[in-house]
Amino acid sequence: MEKKKPSLEELFSPEGVAVVGVSPSGKSSFATLGVLALKEAGFPAIYPVNPKYTEVLGLPCYPSLRAIPGVVDHVVVSIPAESALALLDDCAAKGVRSVHFFTAGFSESGHTERAELEKAMLDKARAGGFRIIGPNCVGLFVPRSRLINDVGIPLEPGPIAFISQSGGHAQNLPLYGGPRGLRFSKVVSYGNALDVDESELLDCFSRDPETEIIAAYIEGVKDGKRFLRALREAAARKPVVIYKGGTTEAGRRTAHGHTASLTSSVAVFDALCRQMKTIQVDDIEEMIDVLVALRFAVPLPQGTGVAVVGAGGGPSVLASDEMEKAGLRLPHLSPEVQAELRQFLPLAGSIFGNPVDAPNLASPEAISATMRVLGKVADIHMLVYHLGFHPISRWAPGRFSSAAFLKPVIDALVETHQMSGKPVLLALCPAPELGGMKEFLATQEAFVEAGFPVFNSLRQAARAMARVVAWNQV
Amino acid sequence: MEKKKPSLEELFSPEGVAVVGVSPSGKSSFATLGVLALKEAGFPAIYPVNPKYTEVLGLPCYPSLRAIPGVVDHVVVSIPAESALALLDDCAAKGVRSVHFFTAGFSESGHTERAELEKAMLDKARAGGFRIIGPNCVGLFVPRSRLINDVGIPLEPGPIAFISQSGGHAQNLPLYGGPRGLRFSKVVSYGNALDVDESELLDCFSRDPETEIIAAYIEGVKDGKRFLRALREAAARKPVVIYKGGTTEAGRRTAHGHTASLTSSVAVFDALCRQMKTIQVDDIEEMIDVLVALRFAVPLPQGTGVAVVGAGGGPSVLASDEMEKAGLRLPHLSPEVQAELRQFLPLAGSIFGNPVDAPNLASPEAISATMRVLGKVADIHMLVYHLGFHPISRWAPGRFSSAAFLKPVIDALVETHQMSGKPVLLALCPAPELGGMKEFLATQEAFVEAGFPVFNSLRQAARAMARVVAWNQV
Repeated sequence: MEKKKPSLEELFSPEGVAVVGVSPSGKSSFATLGVLALKEAGFPAIYPVNPKYTEVLGLPCYPSLRAIPGVVDHVVVSIPAESALALLDDCAAKGVRSVHFFTAGFSESGHTERAELEKAMLDKARAGGFRIIGPNCVGLFVPRSRLINDVGIPLEPGPIAFISQSGGHAQNLPLYGGPRGLRFSKVVSYGNALDVDESELLDCFSRDPETEIIAAYIEGVKDGKRFLRALREAAARKPVVIYKGGTTEAGRRTAHGHTASLTSSVAVFDALCRQMKTIQVDDIEEMIDVLVALRFAVPLPQGTGVAVVGAGGGPSVLASDEMEKAGLRLPHLSPEVQAELRQFLPLAGSIFGNPVDAPNLASPEAISATMRVLGKVADIHMLVYHLGFHPISRWAPGRFSSAAFLKPVIDALVETHQMSGKPVLLALCPAPELGGMKEFLATQEAFVEAGFPVFNSLRQAARAMARVVAWNQV
Repeated sequence: MEKKKPSLEELFSPEGVAVVGVSPSGKSSFATLGVLALKEAGFPAIYPVNPKYTEVLGLPCYPSLRAIPGVVDHVVVSIPAESALALLDDCAAKGVRSVHFFTAGFSESGHTERAELEKAMLDKARAGGFRIIGPNCVGLFVPRSRLINDVGIPLEPGPIAFISQSGGHAQNLPLYGGPRGLRFSKVVSYGNALDVDESELLDCFSRDPETEIIAAYIEGVKDGKRFLRALREAAARKPVVIYKGGTTEAGRRTAHGHTASLTSSVAVFDALCRQMKTIQVDDIEEMIDVLVALRFAVPLPQGTGVAVVGAGGGPSVLASDEMEKAGLRLPHLSPEVQAELRQFLPLAGSIFGNPVDAPNLASPEAISATMRVLGKVADIHMLVYHLGFHPISRWAPGRFSSAAFLKPVIDALVETHQMSGKPVLLALCPAPELGGMKEFLATQEAFVEAGFPVFNSLRQAARAMARVVAWNQV
């Protein structure tokens, strides 16, 4: 007889976590890295399991799940696929709620007996009343519960839930999005989707009070109708950002080898995503950009009018082309506005159109004055200040990350934002060498801490904002 | 009566350079930075000019051009536009060959009297038998002559000539392309193109024996017919890579304010570029990628078949999608080739299709063995190895930049390249924090020094290679 299966909500705050398949040496083993991450996060009850050892990373190591004295409700597994069924018997005996398999080499390998093994695993989970996450994934990351699968991910909770069929993307979104200010309620990597799948996760995060924005990386959908229902429901309640992997013939083939996904027709998927009012992106970088826009370009712009401010004729021409190609508009500045700008910007080397380009637009005073003027223009709905960490920064290394530059500029941008009620965006372009990167990272950190949306190029800012504005206007 | 005007070739190896408008304090003045750059480059005869000072950056400073005792054949100018005509009289008296104006605020300002001032300047240049570069530009960079306009640019000469209407782009291509291995014969930023223009530069580099590849950033063309003739001639002799700025209505408006350019119809320009067999790109980043491909992905691939190798299911799905979207093919691997790979790659977590993805593909042995096997496959025309500096690298920081990793991998890639006669490419993805960036930069440097084309994402590799293969097949 089957026991009642726990809901996903019940999996997000385990009391004790067992990690099966650890070794004290190999730091590159997923299981050992998992223990390390849980330890660094301060998770209270971690139980390494491996009959070969008595201690791993300073923690007592147990010969089996059954030998653990305390409560274990979540199990993290990195052992050969062949040993999976025996382990699941132990899980049932111990009364766990969820089992996450790092282990790969199941249905995605294309071998029939491995697909059958998966089915037998699911039967055991149903009979034992516990859930399986994966196999072939990196599992759960719940900052509030200090439940974590990887080191280097920000532990502060936030409003974004991420559903990822790929383990790598599940790690990379928080890692690369972290310095841009993105924080997460839950990240779930679900790999082969044997039990927990994209539709159930969508349903769950759609209802989750801790989640305000849902992001998803999906290779294949298990049940089209269920997914459609879940997506409609979720997109009606919250912004949903979707990156679909496997949109080409080669991509579909690879997705099948990666997570045994049978990807659907791209045209159908695209049409559904549009109809359901989701935002589609083409990679993790674009997903980060759109999440940054949704989260920090607030209130979201009420139209497509953008003002671009920064030094450099080349970047200004590029900005114009990219904004317009993306679907944004650069409204002309009236003679009155231009006259105001001429009061503090020099004639030589300046462009008083939109973009506004002037050699002194790297000075706090000129930036502040310009932003204040443009914030008042009616058909401008958002303002972008751009700064390349080359070549200007090497004239005075460290200048842009200094308080003398950052404090007055941030104050002026905060004031522009508050007075105008329009989002103020930053396009900060990284440097090609270490000194410039150091300055870039410090400057980015300061703007992110002040609550601004920071993009790493004018093109990325243009594309993300165009997507979010289009989504918001539907 | 007009004197004979010097050819461009005569401008590239000046004996003495005067820099007019320096100041000892303001390091952010273009002129002072120019002196600093020339000094650092070891240019032998630099003459700062400013009546207010007797010494600048440790060099004697002269009150006027005429007061300089030695030969001056090139003059770098950063003084107000109003003083330009008087200065040009001095230039004529001193018998210089070329005058480069950093100074902006001429015709691009939109003021009629400034456009007339430009005309008067050109008359003086014709009468005096010298050339004007700009105004409103950063001028000449000729590594062989140690003639340089900026610090931080690689001084080693190379085979690429860059013609840039934007000063910022003229500096950024060598600065950002330097770490990727790009080296230059000449870089000329020509701004408002009052005298020296895009057509004359194209003609010059088309004949230049030191130039093998021509890159150009163009906002507007002064004489359509002349440009067409020059482009046809150049593209018949050498690869020509063109980035056209101002391809949208907003971009055209900004380009006019930037360099007084009247940009032509985009459709016409696009058609001409295709007809003339040039390679078009959309920004400086893509230009760097295409130049890296032309320069180091040699011999250029004889077809569109690509093999992708690296760890990670997510990146492998992305690689498949990006390669196919760009127009490249990922040929299926035969059962025999797959069987060969299975001898050293594990079943669990691997994809034996193309891309080849296996957890141990970050080990030198597995990379080497896989590349050797794939190098022999007939319909594969190029091989890509990809490596993200997250999350793998933080399992063992510094590992990928260590000789223990780099030496065997580089040896194997060099061997694969030599045995197969096919280009081997690297897609190395930068990290979002300083430690990872340090490792990324060191690893990139090692591959670049070994002569490999390095791209900073799978997408960039796909797009650049697709462009170059298409161009090569015409």
